[in-house]
Formats: sequence, structure tokens, C-alpha cells
Amino acid sequence: MSIQQLFGAPLKVVNVGIEAFKETCGKFSASAVQVDWRPAVDVAPESEAILAKHATRIEKANQKALEIILAGAPKLVGLEIARRVIPGMTADTILHAGPPITWDRMCGPMRGGVMAGLVYEGRATTLAAAEQLASSGKIQYAPCHEHAAVGPMAGIVTPSMPVWIIKNETYGNFAYCTLNEGLGKVLRYGAFGDEVTQRLKWMETVLYPVLKAALAQTGPIDLKNLIAQALHMGDEVHNRNRAGTSLLYRAIAPAVLATCDNKDDAVAVLNFINGNDHFFLNLSMPACKATLDAARGVKGSSIAVVMARNGTDFGIQLAGTGDLWFTAPAEVPDALYFAGFTKDDANPDIGDSAITETGGLGGFAIAAAPAIVQFVGGAAADALRYTLQMYEITAGESRMYQIPALDFRGTPTGIDVRKVVEKNLVPVIDTGVAHKQAGVGQVGAGIVAAPMGPFAKAYDALAKILK
Amino acid sequence: MSIQQLFGAPLKVVNVGIEAFKETCGKFSASAVQVDWRPAVDVAPESEAILAKHATRIEKANQKALEIILAGAPKLVGLEIARRVIPGMTADTILHAGPPITWDRMCGPMRGGVMAGLVYEGRATTLAAAEQLASSGKIQYAPCHEHAAVGPMAGIVTPSMPVWIIKNETYGNFAYCTLNEGLGKVLRYGAFGDEVTQRLKWMETVLYPVLKAALAQTGPIDLKNLIAQALHMGDEVHNRNRAGTSLLYRAIAPAVLATCDNKDDAVAVLNFINGNDHFFLNLSMPACKATLDAARGVKGSSIAVVMARNGTDFGIQLAGTGDLWFTAPAEVPDALYFAGFTKDDANPDIGDSAITETGGLGGFAIAAAPAIVQFVGGAAADALRYTLQMYEITAGESRMYQIPALDFRGTPTGIDVRKVVEKNLVPVIDTGVAHKQAGVGQVGAGIVAAPMGPFAKAYDALAKILK
Repeated sequence: MSIQQLFGAPLKVVNVGIEAFKETCGKFSASAVQVDWRPAVDVAPESEAILAKHATRIEKANQKALEIILAGAPKLVGLEIARRVIPGMTADTILHAGPPITWDRMCGPMRGGVMAGLVYEGRATTLAAAEQLASSGKIQYAPCHEHAAVGPMAGIVTPSMPVWIIKNETYGNFAYCTLNEGLGKVLRYGAFGDEVTQRLKWMETVLYPVLKAALAQTGPIDLKNLIAQALHMGDEVHNRNRAGTSLLYRAIAPAVLATCDNKDDAVAVLNFINGNDHFFLNLSMPACKATLDAARGVKGSSIAVVMARNGTDFGIQLAGTGDLWFTAPAEVPDALYFAGFTKDDANPDIGDSAITETGGLGGFAIAAAPAIVQFVGGAAADALRYTLQMYEITAGESRMYQIPALDFRGTPTGIDVRKVVEKNLVPVIDTGVAHKQAGVGQVGAGIVAAPMGPFAKAYDALAKILK
Repeated sequence: MSIQQLFGAPLKVVNVGIEAFKETCGKFSASAVQVDWRPAVDVAPESEAILAKHATRIEKANQKALEIILAGAPKLVGLEIARRVIPGMTADTILHAGPPITWDRMCGPMRGGVMAGLVYEGRATTLAAAEQLASSGKIQYAPCHEHAAVGPMAGIVTPSMPVWIIKNETYGNFAYCTLNEGLGKVLRYGAFGDEVTQRLKWMETVLYPVLKAALAQTGPIDLKNLIAQALHMGDEVHNRNRAGTSLLYRAIAPAVLATCDNKDDAVAVLNFINGNDHFFLNLSMPACKATLDAARGVKGSSIAVVMARNGTDFGIQLAGTGDLWFTAPAEVPDALYFAGFTKDDANPDIGDSAITETGGLGGFAIAAAPAIVQFVGGAAADALRYTLQMYEITAGESRMYQIPALDFRGTPTGIDVRKVVEKNLVPVIDTGVAHKQAGVGQVGAGIVAAPMGPFAKAYDALAKILK
């Protein structure tokens, strides 16, 4: 067909991309067809060919990594003070959420959390002194994830904080997480002040010893079982933990009663847990961490074992790329903001809690928890859609964690970075939102998309390793 | 068209009823259309016309009854020994589930429950003596429902048993129910023996005083709120009460601890509740009873306020027909039977627990609890279908009790006997199944259809009253 013929014939448009253009064609009586297409992800030109060439090897590695993840058996085995149990933790160490970051690049809520932590530790008596010490170079900052730990939001772990100890019974590895402080003015959202410090001290001196004694009596608590039940009860164990908290409470309350001789303390401990439906989050997170850490180091695997945000950067790690982090700027969530706050107040996405999505829970299991979607203005069908999309980018399905509304189908598990890039479809994460300034706290909650950058970089890195 | 023309023309079949006939037509190349039709319900010929004539009046009465039901506010306000608090209860009274029945017509599990109750009361030391006393005429049997009470399965309430006290805060009326014994050998399934008696004694002497003291500290517990939460957590509060039990447990455990000075007793009480996910059933039932009783006596209303079975008869009562019972034989459920049992072992449907369906919960809310349908071999879509069908026969929707999978639509509430009859669609009930012999216990669970008989009789009776 010559150019003359082409333009002489009636216009037929095949529109790719922005649909408005097709609609405009319609107005001028030109026939147009819309093609569902997304722009290609910006990766190195040779990566796709390399990964295609090694597809069989990658597939085999992914099956191995997936099997390790599916076979994980996280159990709550006890509590201990962080510095006594977290590997590599010194008196000057402060752990934080997300990929590595220096003080000068930390966001407001993370700085607030560090300052609150230094005051709590007695290393500073004023916030000004805490800020000076924090920026002095004397404090060694490290990601929780590099110390077998995870932390929600700012994810600050200081040496004196009590932590849960989770053991992956199948593989013998451990994971650690602080205890959830509840809502309101809390360190993990970057709040500080007397209220925050006093609560942390009470957690160290009352909550910790009471729960430690109770757990010594109950013996290990099977978190995989509790999470599976919680998914049947409307939780996705990231932003909704009411069922998980209830089931944990039922499991430990008689032991609290039996082992605690101070009645006031025992009542206070039970009321503290009962007053905080997020209490179980700090167990679902390390349960996923213990499960996923066992799959580290499976050579050639394109499955993610970490997604984490420090409030400045969003970072991921793959089973097949060792200790490398792949990062991109964290984005400000399009969330539901509490009265009096807007997106302008919000800090970019923050926290290790995306370990739940990495483990096939949270946003990946949101079809089990339509109440979360309703809370941010969506419908039950949206929750189903989010979960169904995640099957597109995962290597398999959980044998234990199920979605009732999908006829108890296993949750989508094991994010395959190849699928994320090649389908241009990023993980969905449901999350809380912190104020961008230190000292304020939570301002909203929402369902957010991970940025593509870290996945594109990980894709290229895996190709380089396999080349 | 003459007969000759009719049979000369190509055969076109309009098939009504059994679909297999249409399929047969298809095999012989005759075109056939299937019409969705059900045989008419057997009611008095004039009833439909009378009820149609009074449709406006009935509609208005139903709106009034529905509003009373929707506005009910059942709260758990305390516990007391049955004879001290249940109106009209004497030392010789034994209450039972379902419509009125005499000893000679009682089914095996109800007789077993009565005998167990008499042994528990110390009125007989052997089962033989208990049976003799039970049949002597000295015992006054009466339906729980005629004494502001409800009871699961056999529904036996004897004078010394502790009962929950539920108050409908909106209308000031009360409802009562025994405490749930747990599973295994239990009186409500017609079991007897030392194990049953000892548990009942422990419930009277330990469980009751400990919970009574705890509730005095917590103050009234809002059951409407707990039930609404439980529906968001996978319960329908009839056959699945795991969430309701968990939430109740959370609410009372700190008070048990604070008010009970005997640590062993307190631990035993918490373990007893924790070991029985049906514990909340005996609160969801009287919550519905207190809610529905307030709508009794709304003249002209065709809304059911009771559905109940005594294991021999299935009976209903309407808001608009006073204290009349409308009964038909109870049917043996097509259920999932436990290993070693079949339908031949099963007693006909028994228990007051269908008060939950009458109140818009249980089978009517089963879309909130797909795990129940899965348990009996169905799919999540079946659970949705059951609930969606029940909107066809109800007067309205709950403003508080919601189905997450239906975008938090209110549960179908207020069974309209006109719709049941005219659409020939009976209520769905999910239930436990008792062995037909006294002394055995539970043999299965399933989803059953109510018999049409009581609804047809109630339909005719309402027409007679309005004529």
C-alpha cells in the first residue's frame, strides 16, 4: 500500500496507550480500536534475552526458593532484650526499617523514632541532645533486615527494647521484632515525648517479663496456624490484625494469669493487648521474615525475599542476588487521610511491613479482608481484583494461607521479579502513612503500588550475574 | 388453532418443572423452553385473596415489626440461676427447645437431656429413676420460647442451671440462655452420665460465679456490636462462633483476672471458654431472642418472630398471630455426618438455634462464613447464593449486621411468611445434628431447609385473623 493509498482510504486507528485519544477519534467518526498495552519497563536491553536463555535454570531455582518459603514453619518461641539476642547488635546500634540509610538522608519520622529511641535508652535527656548524638557519627545505623529483624513504620530497634523471638522450625533460622506499641503517639510513626518514653519503659519492665513468663508456660505458639485462621476471619495480617490479635490473646491469657503474681500487672498486660488490634502485626511480620530468610542465597532465583521502605528509599532483595539491595525513591501514598491531614502532610512510604506482601499476605491476601478496601472507599470486588492480579506476578500459591472468598485458594506467594518487569505489574501493598515531620505520628492508611525502579534494577542485576 | 393444526405443526414444548423432560425433547430435535416454576404451596384457597386485600395493612404492620427488630439493642447484663430469674419457672419446671411437647412425644436426645437434667438437679440418682420421674407427670414441661428463653439442641433448662441475662436496651425486655457446655458428651445433644453431670456442676459452682463477678466489673457488653464484628470475621454466629467467642473472651478475660481470687479457678474458666469455639452461640441466640420478642404482638404482621424445633415438630410464631404455634414434623437433615454415623442415626432437626436465622443471622448470613459451606462440601459461591435467596423472603436488611463479600450489605432480616408461601421458598438453616437415641450426642452438621408446613399454616391463620 502506497502512502497515497493509505491516506486516501478511510482512517482506521489502532490506539495503544492513553484511551482518551481513541475517544477523540470516535468524535470525528474515525473507527478506532483500543489495545491494552503498558509502556515497557526501563531495563537494560540485553537483560530479557539473558533471562530468557536461562529460563529453565531460573525456573528450577524459583521452585526451590518457593518450596522453602511454602515449607517454612514460623513459631513464636519467646522474648528477649534486643541487645542480648539480635546478632551483631552493639550498645551503639540502632536498627531501622528499609534499605541502608545514613542520618542525613533519613526522613522526618525515622529521625523522630531515632531521637525517641535515644531518649528511651537514657543516651540523651532532651530531643536537642538526642538529635546531636544521632548525627554525631557515634551511632551505627543498620537495616533491621540485615540483622534477622523487621520493624513496622520507622522500624527503630534500640538495644534495650524487648523483641519477640520467632524460629522457623523447618530451617532453624530466627527472626526478631519489637512489640507493637498501639496507636496514637508512638515511636514507630516518629512520635516522641514523655508519653512515648513512658510506654516504652512500661513495655520493657512490665509487658516484656509478663509475656516472657507466660510464653515459657505455653511453649512455642504456631504462628503459621494463627495466620491461617486469621485469614479465615477477615485479616490480611498487615493492616488488619483483629483476628490474629484475638487468637494470640486467647492463646496466652490463661498463661499470663497463671504465671503473673502481680494481679495489676497481669490485668494491665491483658488490657494493653486487648486495646490494640494491631498487636499481632509485630508477629505476622517476623513470621514472614523467618519464612523468607530461609530462601536467601538460592542461586539464580528471581524471587523477592525482601520488600522494605525507609521513608526515603524503597528497596528489595532477591533470593538469587545475595545481600544486594535494589532501591528507588519511595513514593507518597495515595491514601485515606485522617481528618485534618492531606497528602501534603504525608511521608513517603515507610516500614518493613511489606515483608507480609513479600510472604504472600497483606495486600496479596486482601481478598480475605474486604473491610480494608471498604475503609479506603473501595468495594469487595476491588479486594478480589487486587489479590487476583498478584497471582500474575508470583511463583506459586500458599498451601496454608487461604482466601475464603476465592474458594479457599492459596494466597499468591513468591514475587517473581521477571513477571513484575515483563508484565509491568507491581506488587500492591496496604500500609499506614506517617506524617513527614518527626514527632507527629500516623496521618492515614491506604493501598499503594510499589515503585517499579527496584524491580527493574534487580532484573538487570540478576541478568548480569547469570550472563 | 384446531387440534389438527396443533399436532400438525412442528412440536414446540414449554416445559414446566422437571428439567430432564426438556432435555429429552432436545434429543428428539423438538424445541423446548424451560420455565422456572415450583408447585404451589398447599394453603387454604381463600387465604391469598384475603392477604392481598389487606396488603397495605400487612405492609405497614411489617414495617413496624421490622423497625422494632432493626432497632433492638441486645446487651449482656449479667448471669443468674435460672429459677431465680426466668419468669414462671418453678422447682418442677423443665424448659425445652421448640414448640410445646409432652414427654410421650419427645425425641431421644430431648428425653436424654431431661434425664441428665434431673440427675444434675439431684431429683434422681439413676437414669432409670430419672426416666420414671420424667414421665410421672410431676414435671412441668414448657418451651424455652414461652419463658423468654432459648436453648440450643435439646434446649433443656433446669431450675439450678446458670443462665446469661440479655437485656434489649431499646425496649426493656429480657432473654435468657444457659451457658454453652462445649463439644463431646454434652446434655444439649442428649448425652448423659457422670462426665455430663460433673461438667454441669462445675459450670454452676465455678464458671457461673467467676463470670458473674467479671461481668459486674465490665458492665453491660454490647452483643449487637460483637455480632456485627464477628460477621466481619467469618462467623454467622450459628454454626461458626470462633470470632464471637474470641471477642467475648477479650472483653471479659481482664475482668476475670481482676475479680477472681482463686487463680486455679480463673485459669480453668479462661481455658474452658478458649477450648470451645461455640461458647458465643449461647449469647448470639438470646441476643436474637431479646431482639425478636420485642416485635411480638404487632397486629397484622406476617413476620416470623420464632422458628424452633423440638426434634419432633418444627414450629414458628408470627408477630401478628400472638402466642399461636404453627407446626409440622421436623425433618432429618441431609447433613455431613461424622465418621461412623449416617442419616439413619440422625434425629430430626432440633433446637432453638434457628432463632439466629429468624433474626437475620445463621444461614441467612452464611455468605459471611463460607468456611461452613466448605465444611459440608460446598463452594464460596453457594454461601453467597444461600444468603441472596433469603433476601427474597425477608422484609428488610439489617443496618448493623453486614456481609463483607456482598459489599457490606445488611443481612436479610424479618422473614415474611407471605413471601415464603407465595414464592415457595423456605428459610435455610445451618445446624448441628443429634443422634436419635438418648445418651449419644452430636453426629453431624449441615445446611437444611425449613419445612413448608408451619409457614403454610401460619399463612392461613393470619388470613383467618384478618378476614
